[in-house]
Amino acid sequence: MAQSDITIEALSKVGQEDAEYMVSLVRSVPGFPKEGIIFRDFMPVIADPRGLKILLKALEETLPVSPDEFDAVAGLESRGFLFGPSLAAHLGKGFIAVRKAGKLPPETIGESYDLEYGTASVEIETEAVAKGERVLIVDDLIATGGTAKAAADLIEKAGGKVAGFSFVMKLNGLDGIDKLGGVPVSSLISMPA
Amino acid sequence: MAQSDITIEALSKVGQEDAEYMVSLVRSVPGFPKEGIIFRDFMPVIADPRGLKILLKALEETLPVSPDEFDAVAGLESRGFLFGPSLAAHLGKGFIAVRKAGKLPPETIGESYDLEYGTASVEIETEAVAKGERVLIVDDLIATGGTAKAAADLIEKAGGKVAGFSFVMKLNGLDGIDKLGGVPVSSLISMPA
Repeated sequence: MAQSDITIEALSKVGQEDAEYMVSLVRSVPGFPKEGIIFRDFMPVIADPRGLKILLKALEETLPVSPDEFDAVAGLESRGFLFGPSLAAHLGKGFIAVRKAGKLPPETIGESYDLEYGTASVEIETEAVAKGERVLIVDDLIATGGTAKAAADLIEKAGGKVAGFSFVMKLNGLDGIDKLGGVPVSSLISMPA
Repeated sequence: MAQSDITIEALSKVGQEDAEYMVSLVRSVPGFPKEGIIFRDFMPVIADPRGLKILLKALEETLPVSPDEFDAVAGLESRGFLFGPSLAAHLGKGFIAVRKAGKLPPETIGESYDLEYGTASVEIETEAVAKGERVLIVDDLIATGGTAKAAADLIEKAGGKVAGFSFVMKLNGLDGIDKLGGVPVSSLISMPA
């Protein structure tokens, strides 16, 4: 990817050489999943042994709040599953799986959100969030923020409190972060939508 | 879960106290996803800080082959994503995402497999597997083995070689492992289907 159109927030945390190496592995795929969209693919980052280590370290070093300000890490299916449990284990926290509707056994709590056409739902197990538990939500990408907002509403509905959001990539020019109600947010890389 | 009907292969690797603690967190849900099936839910294991650490350690200590006998770790969407990248990073390997059809940007390689009704497909990015690369496949559960076999065929189709399979749970009384062609297989816990 061209270096000129991106910002690497993780630069000061993991060092320039590692940060630029990680970014060099992100693949831009125009026209996927549909015409007019540039898909930012970080699978080549985690397929690379060094890239994977840098990414996991960068997430841990770039948290939006201090580790003592949250009790658990929640990750969104499927790509939030790729690094949420690793981050949680490193920090001595548990991991809460936010899944698409119908995947988790009962009892569950669900939250619907709007898609371009129609709606989708995410769910957690009712027992997954303790009353008053402070939760960091992680995902690969913040774009329009619809899924992240639904996950946050779900955590609150379950009696928890959202302590912050940690994303690998942020797409600029969309209003995703504005939807998240002023909760602290971090990302490793920002790039054009 | 009753201790009497299960075998904990990880016992000798992580110690009796930790192994039994981990197993005590597995939740059995009768009738999900349909009548007659007992769903074995390990989400409460990873939601628990100690359970998550034990699980990740047990996977690393219970590998079916030595770490120098494989080059990369592949994990199946979605639950294989929960611990594959962590395992890969610990071992200094990269992680290959085996996703449901249509999720990965092109170019991809796919492999279909039979479900009870109809078929499903899994895909990897064409670039994800190097020629001759030796791959450990991880997933949460081996039951009938259909998905694991499809993932293995996919790795081979992409030019790689399957070095082994690592599962969290194995369901007894099904012939899943017999489908995997004699490749080394490990699991942490065995229990009735």
